[in-house]
Amino acid sequence: MDYDELVSHILKGDRRSAARLISLVEDEEEGYEKALKSLYPKTRGVPVLGVTGAPGVGKSTIVLEITKRLRSEGRRVGIVAVDPTSPITGGAILGDRIRMTELFADPGVFIRSMGSRGGSGGLSSQTGSAVRILDAMGCDQIIVETVGAGQTQVDIMGMADTIVVATMPGSGDEVQSIKAGLLEIADIYVVNKCDLPGAMRTVSDIQSMLDLVEDWEGWKPPVMQTNARESRGIDELVGNIRKHDEYARSSERLIKRKKEQYRREIQELVTREMARKAFSSIEEEELDRMLERILRREENPYSEAERIAARLFSGRKDIASRGQR
Amino acid sequence: MDYDELVSHILKGDRRSAARLISLVEDEEEGYEKALKSLYPKTRGVPVLGVTGAPGVGKSTIVLEITKRLRSEGRRVGIVAVDPTSPITGGAILGDRIRMTELFADPGVFIRSMGSRGGSGGLSSQTGSAVRILDAMGCDQIIVETVGAGQTQVDIMGMADTIVVATMPGSGDEVQSIKAGLLEIADIYVVNKCDLPGAMRTVSDIQSMLDLVEDWEGWKPPVMQTNARESRGIDELVGNIRKHDEYARSSERLIKRKKEQYRREIQELVTREMARKAFSSIEEEELDRMLERILRREENPYSEAERIAARLFSGRKDIASRGQR
Repeated sequence: MDYDELVSHILKGDRRSAARLISLVEDEEEGYEKALKSLYPKTRGVPVLGVTGAPGVGKSTIVLEITKRLRSEGRRVGIVAVDPTSPITGGAILGDRIRMTELFADPGVFIRSMGSRGGSGGLSSQTGSAVRILDAMGCDQIIVETVGAGQTQVDIMGMADTIVVATMPGSGDEVQSIKAGLLEIADIYVVNKCDLPGAMRTVSDIQSMLDLVEDWEGWKPPVMQTNARESRGIDELVGNIRKHDEYARSSERLIKRKKEQYRREIQELVTREMARKAFSSIEEEELDRMLERILRREENPYSEAERIAARLFSGRKDIASRGQR
Repeated sequence: MDYDELVSHILKGDRRSAARLISLVEDEEEGYEKALKSLYPKTRGVPVLGVTGAPGVGKSTIVLEITKRLRSEGRRVGIVAVDPTSPITGGAILGDRIRMTELFADPGVFIRSMGSRGGSGGLSSQTGSAVRILDAMGCDQIIVETVGAGQTQVDIMGMADTIVVATMPGSGDEVQSIKAGLLEIADIYVVNKCDLPGAMRTVSDIQSMLDLVEDWEGWKPPVMQTNARESRGIDELVGNIRKHDEYARSSERLIKRKKEQYRREIQELVTREMARKAFSSIEEEELDRMLERILRREENPYSEAERIAARLFSGRKDIASRGQR
């Protein structure tokens, strides 16, 4: 694998090379960090939009509509979907996916799903790498879609300049679920499918939840209504996204958020680097005997894991020197 | 936290204590491994059923129906849902959830969702711990539900004695998606919602896919039709699950699978143990300066992560001795 060539193709805007490198990152292919290291200084830090919410609220249609607006201005859009249920990357029923066809046909749009192959996790750092690859390739705006559940998803959203939390009219439960994990990260709330009964109720439920917070430090998240399938409310949404992007860049908000995200990403990278070496010091036979003791309930996995970790931390010379390349 | 007391309550079958310990595991609360270590020898290795598939195919309804059958035989059932879209744990629309009410009302059924709180991953090892806690608490059968996408989900399925992959009639894409990740792990295929048009086609698509494999080593996965919402095909499914459980236990199949799963789990535990220490050797100020250099593109996160990992592996005495407790 000639990484230098791959990098130079990506910097010239070659989509296939970008796709290739993202796959190498996901597969943790030997040496992929080399490419990421040389790409990193070339990234421009283009705006990253995060769109999250429960399955079925219409996140993908919102992303589709926003992308159309950006394309009409001639901007190149990169979409990264970390969402097994996303029609954008083929995770949903056929009908939804057909509406996405126009996205796929547009050479100014790059679409990628993450998290469905290889690797023992590290999804947050892998998504971060994908965003940077698309930035270096020349995308003017990146959109990251996640399904709104789980700490990993919240972590991933941390790399966005602006985070849109989407919901739809329904039982009060929707608002409860927003409360649970997404309240602290949302910059803009969208009640999609606003033609359904109860939309105003959902808006006011979110509003009253927001009213409980005393200090918004300069930005109180607006609560908007959209009907993405009929393109309603999208211009206003794009307007608010830009307004927040500008606000975030002019305040400490973005730097704080980015720092937090890099901190997590580095932690993930360190962990993976160590995990890669975790079993290398153990003979296959020794491991097999250990597993058999565990299966016989003579030993437990927790104590064995501690023993291995302790051994790794005891500082074997060969491991230490390999880490210092 | 008195872990000894917690453990003794769990061993007496106390549901609340079991729920408590699972939360402590998810939050990685100080000392929770102590409880897991003392519970482990008391586990009996009760049968674990895995049910996986794309969102919307009716996994939860299948789990509900299987659980009803098991309950009618007086068996205590533990359900662990690692699926943000599962109606069983409140991830789906209200209508679906109402059908789950009978599960919640039954004191012989223990339900738990995983992966929606704290922790920096380690979902596979956390789910493994939850399964063992429910085993020690006295469940006679455990069912793990995951949404069929991503390596983590495939890893989690590794702890099941029998894995049911559910799908529904639809475009050939369904079969494609099974091919992608689940082919190697399925013990039984279920085409649910078999009243929908195209069910026979989906069955024969899966059959022809299976026919491509030459050697099944004693068990060729059956392809079944169910209509879980109308309880159709469930008795046959439960029959096949038992048949496979028996086959797996009488052959090398189960031991091989369990070993693979324990190996992954230990790797996760080792990694987490090391990650916990990863940042402890770095001063907050030093970290902040590093993050700023990265934000200015003077440094990249990949090289910094390597430097930290190298430092950890260089074998500082304080870290090493703490690891050896």
